[in-house]
Amino acid sequence: MRSHVLIVGCGFGGLEAARALRGADVDITVVDKTNHHLFQPLLYQVATAGLSAPSIAAPIRQLFRRQPEVTTLLGEVVAVDAAAQTVTLRDGARLRWDHLIVAAGATHSYFGRDDWAPHAPGLKTLDDAFEIRRRVLMAFEAAEREDDPARRAAWLQFVVVGAGPTGVELAGTLAEIARHTLPGEFRRIDPRQARILLVEGGPRVLASMPETLSERAREQLAALGVEVRLSTRVTGIDEQGLDLGTADGPLRLPSRCVLWAAGVAASPLGRVLAGATGCALDRAGRVVVEPDLSVPGHPRIQVIGDLAAAHSHAPGREPRPVPGVSPGAKQMGRCAAANIRRQLRGAATQAFRYADYGNLATIGRHSAVVDLGTPAGALRFSGYFAWLFWLFAHVYFLIGFRNRFVVLLDWAWAYWTYDRGARVVPGGTPAGLSVANPVRDAARDDHRPAG
Amino acid sequence: MRSHVLIVGCGFGGLEAARALRGADVDITVVDKTNHHLFQPLLYQVATAGLSAPSIAAPIRQLFRRQPEVTTLLGEVVAVDAAAQTVTLRDGARLRWDHLIVAAGATHSYFGRDDWAPHAPGLKTLDDAFEIRRRVLMAFEAAEREDDPARRAAWLQFVVVGAGPTGVELAGTLAEIARHTLPGEFRRIDPRQARILLVEGGPRVLASMPETLSERAREQLAALGVEVRLSTRVTGIDEQGLDLGTADGPLRLPSRCVLWAAGVAASPLGRVLAGATGCALDRAGRVVVEPDLSVPGHPRIQVIGDLAAAHSHAPGREPRPVPGVSPGAKQMGRCAAANIRRQLRGAATQAFRYADYGNLATIGRHSAVVDLGTPAGALRFSGYFAWLFWLFAHVYFLIGFRNRFVVLLDWAWAYWTYDRGARVVPGGTPAGLSVANPVRDAARDDHRPAG
Repeated sequence: MRSHVLIVGCGFGGLEAARALRGADVDITVVDKTNHHLFQPLLYQVATAGLSAPSIAAPIRQLFRRQPEVTTLLGEVVAVDAAAQTVTLRDGARLRWDHLIVAAGATHSYFGRDDWAPHAPGLKTLDDAFEIRRRVLMAFEAAEREDDPARRAAWLQFVVVGAGPTGVELAGTLAEIARHTLPGEFRRIDPRQARILLVEGGPRVLASMPETLSERAREQLAALGVEVRLSTRVTGIDEQGLDLGTADGPLRLPSRCVLWAAGVAASPLGRVLAGATGCALDRAGRVVVEPDLSVPGHPRIQVIGDLAAAHSHAPGREPRPVPGVSPGAKQMGRCAAANIRRQLRGAATQAFRYADYGNLATIGRHSAVVDLGTPAGALRFSGYFAWLFWLFAHVYFLIGFRNRFVVLLDWAWAYWTYDRGARVVPGGTPAGLSVANPVRDAARDDHRPAG
Repeated sequence: MRSHVLIVGCGFGGLEAARALRGADVDITVVDKTNHHLFQPLLYQVATAGLSAPSIAAPIRQLFRRQPEVTTLLGEVVAVDAAAQTVTLRDGARLRWDHLIVAAGATHSYFGRDDWAPHAPGLKTLDDAFEIRRRVLMAFEAAEREDDPARRAAWLQFVVVGAGPTGVELAGTLAEIARHTLPGEFRRIDPRQARILLVEGGPRVLASMPETLSERAREQLAALGVEVRLSTRVTGIDEQGLDLGTADGPLRLPSRCVLWAAGVAASPLGRVLAGATGCALDRAGRVVVEPDLSVPGHPRIQVIGDLAAAHSHAPGREPRPVPGVSPGAKQMGRCAAANIRRQLRGAATQAFRYADYGNLATIGRHSAVVDLGTPAGALRFSGYFAWLFWLFAHVYFLIGFRNRFVVLLDWAWAYWTYDRGARVVPGGTPAGLSVANPVRDAARDDHRPAG
């Protein structure tokens, strides 16, 4: 009887684990809540209408077409029984496993203020990306129809909360859209008057980067027209704007489009696992794993990716926390697969060791910062060549030849024309837009071209 | 004071009217419920995951970027006042006009059985296309998880109602997906066992085509594996399937995925116009217009496209109804624009004359039927060259160079690989899927590869 490996979640970690088990004497079932693997580093491009969803998502079934030992199931795991070696799906179905790899990832967190969620969408899923795309484009539509200057200004004030990689990418791209994509298309507003604010609680942008690169990123953001407000806490968000706590005291910022890129929390499956195994969770809800990525006392349950509070164990060095980036998740996936192979042949498992190839972040049209660890020491650069490096690294790692090619084509087009091909919002006029924007008795003169 | 032309709806007719008014001494406002112009003839490709939405949709604002006299407004017209020369939007805003062109198109109709709508989505908008894509792909997912053979068969039985061009395209493409795209990706079902039925109330498919081409289309559908049931009325649709009235008596057909391509009804704006002007509507709710496309007694209101019950007036011939196809809508748009120019200079308007360049319909991978009117007589052909002709005609007319190029690339890829790049369903596990498909205590053997 072949052993059955159950992998929960098909992000970077789960996909890599299943691939790394190719040829092992196991059957594999991959369970995911959606039908697609998502190339999350480019999700902000879908949110900002630069790429269409199929360009960065691939059907999970298709990825395993040539790996017949893998069965794909669409479903959501809601319970784990460590003694019986089963998981239960939301519909009540139970699946048995001999080895369990939990790679359920993370979601955004509002630090206990879930009432902010409707007013400040985060960016983790395709649905999130469509919602952000809709809000950004509809804000310009609403501004075009608004007569009152203050209300119009609120529609044209965009606030991104959190200056990690996602926040920086979103803010930079919003500035690009306002300055380069939309001008010429509106008759009553000038999209270039839109204000893009990036609000960050800490003292610098891209805190995971070296300080010099944070400073370069801040300069590049400013050059794009993004106003960066550091050391600024968000104390409230509602439909009309947000409340900030600054060094100069409280500040009210009217804005009809607030995007959330601040907090990350582990998947709720962390709590499920804690209940089933008694394992500890860290402050972000991640499972504290053994050096070999297994759950303490449960060598056949491994947790990888953003759900794991894992450390890198290099010989002769202090264990170091693994950053929540896709190379980390992929390497954990390979490690989990290798340890299952060892367990199958009765060998001891090995500790996880993270190979840090560096850190990239893009800011907008041809600017980025790159921090590479090389044998000769750290290599740091920023600007145009950093952007090219970022671009090719991302296209290279994008799943599937076709996607890469279409993405490169879309970008080449966008590069020459500033066009953003995916500026399409399904559905009709949103209710909020109509209510908030009376154009009362607009005579024809109001609709003449402004220029 | 320049005259103000208000165009309601930016489909083929409205877009063409606005473009044809370029250089005229008028200001133009285009009001549409969505932010995009949709290339409807390829919408079935979005529904069947062959193309992404941005490939066939362009932001309306972008289309008018270089026509500064055009103002774009996102909004829904709910009332018309012919005496005051205004329209009212859903949010209460009023817009004045000197000339009104109503090009609000059509929607699908369930012949008074709106209770069928939740069980048999139609295909008119991008939202419709996403819903069909979701249902088709989720039916295969559900079948993969279903243990009961009868229930599994119901998930794998796809029924398309209505054998007009859209129904034929949908059925042919579904057969292609089941036979060529999905095999190899499932472990417990064989997607090739899916049954695709095309149900038509009339005696032949593509009733607007000459009889010989209808017969060729039927043969090509059969070759693709589509079962065509002609002269079959639908008497009921519910969540579990549909009831048919056949020559042999009533028949119950279990199916979890029914698609509606049968009825078309004019936009509700037809009734609004009838209330405002007293104009007559035909059985499909279309406005019966004068030969010059104006509303009787209201020379400054014109109705074009699918909302108009218009006739072609060729000298020396009986007036003939204009078919509801995109060339008809575009030609009406040009006619409306030309008549406004004539009105502005005090000249008499001209009657609409439809130039019929022929009729195309595609059936699936390299099959189509073509019926061209040439000076030398009718030219009719079918099969591979008809498909190539169809393909290039559609790509040629697709708005915007970039879209054409990306679409050709997507098709070239799909042609060689049978891959359908847009098989991505945003959102998580649909509730219906989980409830309907218990995989109870599925032991690992159930999830082994079937082969």
